[in-house]
Amino acid sequence: MRPEPRTAIATVCLSGTLEDKLAAAAAAGFDGVELFENDLIVSPSGPAEIRKRCDDLGLSIDLYQPFRDFEAVPPPLHRANLRRAAHKFDVMAELGADTVLVCSSVSPDAIDDDELAAEQLHTLAESAAERGMRIAYEALAWGRHVSGYEHAWRIVRRAAHPALGVCLDSFHILSKGHDPAPIRAIPGEKVFFLQLADAPRLPMDVLPWSRHHRLFPGQGEFDLTAFTGHVLATGYEGPLSLEVFNDVYRQSDPRPAAVDAMRSLLALKESLGVLDLPPAPRLSGHAFAEVVGGAGAGTGAVLASLGFARTGVHRSKPVELWEQGEARVLVNEGGDTGGAIGAVALASADPARSARRAEALLAPVLPRTHGPREADLAAVAAPDGTQLFLCGNDEWRGDFEPTGETTVGTGVFGIDHVALTQPFDHFDEAALFYRSVLGLAPSPVVEFAAPFGLVRSRVVTAGDVRLTLDSALVRRGEWAPAVPEPQHVAFACADAVAAAGKMLALGAPLLEIPGNYYDDLAARLDLPAERIARLRAHSVLHDRDEHGEFLHFYTALAGARVFFEVVQRIGGYRGFGVVNAPVRMAAHRARRHPVPPGATLA
Amino acid sequence: MRPEPRTAIATVCLSGTLEDKLAAAAAAGFDGVELFENDLIVSPSGPAEIRKRCDDLGLSIDLYQPFRDFEAVPPPLHRANLRRAAHKFDVMAELGADTVLVCSSVSPDAIDDDELAAEQLHTLAESAAERGMRIAYEALAWGRHVSGYEHAWRIVRRAAHPALGVCLDSFHILSKGHDPAPIRAIPGEKVFFLQLADAPRLPMDVLPWSRHHRLFPGQGEFDLTAFTGHVLATGYEGPLSLEVFNDVYRQSDPRPAAVDAMRSLLALKESLGVLDLPPAPRLSGHAFAEVVGGAGAGTGAVLASLGFARTGVHRSKPVELWEQGEARVLVNEGGDTGGAIGAVALASADPARSARRAEALLAPVLPRTHGPREADLAAVAAPDGTQLFLCGNDEWRGDFEPTGETTVGTGVFGIDHVALTQPFDHFDEAALFYRSVLGLAPSPVVEFAAPFGLVRSRVVTAGDVRLTLDSALVRRGEWAPAVPEPQHVAFACADAVAAAGKMLALGAPLLEIPGNYYDDLAARLDLPAERIARLRAHSVLHDRDEHGEFLHFYTALAGARVFFEVVQRIGGYRGFGVVNAPVRMAAHRARRHPVPPGATLA
Repeated sequence: MRPEPRTAIATVCLSGTLEDKLAAAAAAGFDGVELFENDLIVSPSGPAEIRKRCDDLGLSIDLYQPFRDFEAVPPPLHRANLRRAAHKFDVMAELGADTVLVCSSVSPDAIDDDELAAEQLHTLAESAAERGMRIAYEALAWGRHVSGYEHAWRIVRRAAHPALGVCLDSFHILSKGHDPAPIRAIPGEKVFFLQLADAPRLPMDVLPWSRHHRLFPGQGEFDLTAFTGHVLATGYEGPLSLEVFNDVYRQSDPRPAAVDAMRSLLALKESLGVLDLPPAPRLSGHAFAEVVGGAGAGTGAVLASLGFARTGVHRSKPVELWEQGEARVLVNEGGDTGGAIGAVALASADPARSARRAEALLAPVLPRTHGPREADLAAVAAPDGTQLFLCGNDEWRGDFEPTGETTVGTGVFGIDHVALTQPFDHFDEAALFYRSVLGLAPSPVVEFAAPFGLVRSRVVTAGDVRLTLDSALVRRGEWAPAVPEPQHVAFACADAVAAAGKMLALGAPLLEIPGNYYDDLAARLDLPAERIARLRAHSVLHDRDEHGEFLHFYTALAGARVFFEVVQRIGGYRGFGVVNAPVRMAAHRARRHPVPPGATLA
Repeated sequence: MRPEPRTAIATVCLSGTLEDKLAAAAAAGFDGVELFENDLIVSPSGPAEIRKRCDDLGLSIDLYQPFRDFEAVPPPLHRANLRRAAHKFDVMAELGADTVLVCSSVSPDAIDDDELAAEQLHTLAESAAERGMRIAYEALAWGRHVSGYEHAWRIVRRAAHPALGVCLDSFHILSKGHDPAPIRAIPGEKVFFLQLADAPRLPMDVLPWSRHHRLFPGQGEFDLTAFTGHVLATGYEGPLSLEVFNDVYRQSDPRPAAVDAMRSLLALKESLGVLDLPPAPRLSGHAFAEVVGGAGAGTGAVLASLGFARTGVHRSKPVELWEQGEARVLVNEGGDTGGAIGAVALASADPARSARRAEALLAPVLPRTHGPREADLAAVAAPDGTQLFLCGNDEWRGDFEPTGETTVGTGVFGIDHVALTQPFDHFDEAALFYRSVLGLAPSPVVEFAAPFGLVRSRVVTAGDVRLTLDSALVRRGEWAPAVPEPQHVAFACADAVAAAGKMLALGAPLLEIPGNYYDDLAARLDLPAERIARLRAHSVLHDRDEHGEFLHFYTALAGARVFFEVVQRIGGYRGFGVVNAPVRMAAHRARRHPVPPGATLA
């Protein structure tokens, strides 16, 4: 195995004052930082104090950045630029930083002349070398004359100064579709710095894409493993350093953001073969979901009406086990959440290894209280606070005293998926978390228009484990109801209409779907009229994809934010009925906040 | 004057259930709506009930939309499309809607064949005509084969059916840079519908630009007056109808959003010369600013330390008048806001006409209590809740009993600007409000990176009236401090360093600026060292533009969210020192929440 590279993060990735950012980076275990000049400028601490603070925190300052619009200018401007550089070197000396990032010029004053650029960079490097410093020259994707890394490398080679090398930034290279393989031709000692950022592929100009939408590695669509592999193949020995400009991370708590950032590097290092982590064991399904809180939520009664039996009572806690087929729900009457999905248990082929991997990837390990003869289940907190149990299929069942209660059932045979709405700040983090920690595969993000705003949605899956992650595209204000948005558990059955009929007979509070929906279904799809009539009579919704069909229905909200869904997958349908989510949201809203004619918006 | 067109709004512009949207549209005074099909589908009310509801609210349903992927397909698909259309006509008959929007196809099944498109649209129109309905065909900017309005019009002309016309959408036409002047060649009776949307010019593909960033007319960069003028010149007699897909409006309270939308049409109609409004009188400056609330905020003491004198006491309210030069601040000890800018008074050449115009443009007129001999000032509420007084220079002074107190002063001679941070949902609304209601000119929007997230900023000005409007780019979550962000009043002086010196001598709580800032200033700019030393000694910041220089400094926060600034404009400097705002924000943060080493982020 190759040596494990050091890790760094640019302070510009995180929110807060410089002091906040450094503390968060250190707490997350970074070895160093790229110090963004503006973060220093607004700090009440001078460079020497910041150096001391970094020392105390165990952080090196691996890069001072950025120095803009330096190269290939007329002589008077060149002299002014050298004066600017001298000031920066002074600051860097106080900081104890030895490398400065010089971005390719975007100035209208810059001349398209590689020889002049090389000559002026040589002068700069000489001046840096005199102070024991060095220059990392980077091609910005929108540089005026230099916008590709191969071009920057040609200039650096031509300048031929030992204190001048290139800085490679994955975003600037991959966003433009440049082939990263030729990086291997650059000698490792001339790669002075490596900046890593992922991104979704967005149909916009590269400048706003870069400034607003970068992501940590593994959160976007770039192949950072291949990219970084090329860089490490050069013999590069500097840090893997994150430089992510992102609207959401810029304003969210830097402490979890830094942990998220570090997780992205741990996963990247694993994929590069420079870090050994316990491999993610196979997950075979949802062992159970737990609904916590709100004695008034009536979850048990709703489950009974869906044909579940209360098969067990916990030996030491106010928790009931409800079952039908392989669908298992714990109803925890404790807590005062008004009803929430407190936990999801995933059946792992090796729970202990799952837990070791989760811990290695910085998932918060939860303290677990259990009685003397009760199962000791490993649990970690997901980014939204949901507890994730990693367990075998059955060892937890011994904690429950069987009641002997049974039910004829309604055809539910398991949990199809669990829908966890994500807090606004944690949507991208969640995808990386589930992928890296649990080995679930994230789907592409889709957006849909819901009654109270746009919603982003993605699914993370592995075999029969399916979690859907939804979040508002714009953080909700006061107008939107139900913040946080409801969560739900979706049960699988083989005949949704039959199941709905049985459940209605048991008095289940199924969500009524508007007649308009079925009129539209008839208009859109070539379905037999009697089939639509059956769906309509049972408030069952319909979707199809290229693989098959999907029938599903919902309950009303039980408590503040939990409801249930029952789904039937026909053929190889792979979706989750997202197209019908707005119908469900409006129906939940109508049911909870009926609109008296002429009165609501008076 | 041409007849005043009717007004309509697409339900997709607004947030909530269909019932919420209709109520909001009616309350704002719209004559009709475009009914977005999905809004109907998710509604528990059937089409006949919606028709009844619209009747009760006085709303017509001017368009049912959208019908997608109809034209130029192979025969079997054409038959299926006609079946889909028949269903829609059924719904429209129940709704009492007679016009349906058909968007140019984006389907891979569509054939690039104008004759086929015309033939199939003719068939559709014939089928519509049999039911007394008609088809408005629109070119989507991203239509597969038809993406320009002139192309759509050629197909409509070729189809030659009286029940087939075009729908013109300003976004689809102007976003692609198509010349709208040839619209005049279309006979008015063939323009079946007009959809209006403005937008900022954004460097992205037209599809996401359209889906996320449309704005109401006057909020963006399109020339809607010229565009709509071309359409009205055809003899078009349908409504001016808004179709705005916007991430923020989709999730914000539909009641103010609908008022905002209606205001955009009133202003557009005025600019078209089809609506007479009282013209905006000239504003000559800020008569005063009022700081409300928080006896503990100590505003009076801060003003005293800035060299202001308490020159008057209100005859009937707990309000003091503080003055220096032409800078006047009312300090209102009532309320429990912890300190906020409650009101800004603008000196109008004709206050009564200013008030009539404001009311005509739907600015909420505020009830005003005044004593028998006190001035009756007209006041309206700005979108952020700030009271705007429209007054003469002096009539309000009689309300104050002179104290006879005087001061030697510190060189402040007036109010330079007032900075009103905007609630997230109201940023675009505010620009339109100030432009239309008060005749202030909005500047382009700039973005800057602040310690707790990106900030959007714009200025609205007229002569010596200057209001700066800042808002977070992403609605702030729990991490960011100071939500809502602080507001401030900026005073003008002729010598900032001298003023700062005098104020410090008076004990003013000036905001200390980090030494790093001045080190950077020295590196960036060719300023004499002794000048920088003077700025540093007085915590005065510096900016320059192509017209001149700017010196400014701040006080600490007085209370929860108000502070003061003192500015000196040198030469013709036109900016507001936005580049220094992050320095100020970090300094305010450091002062209020000092970070104990190693402790904050434990």
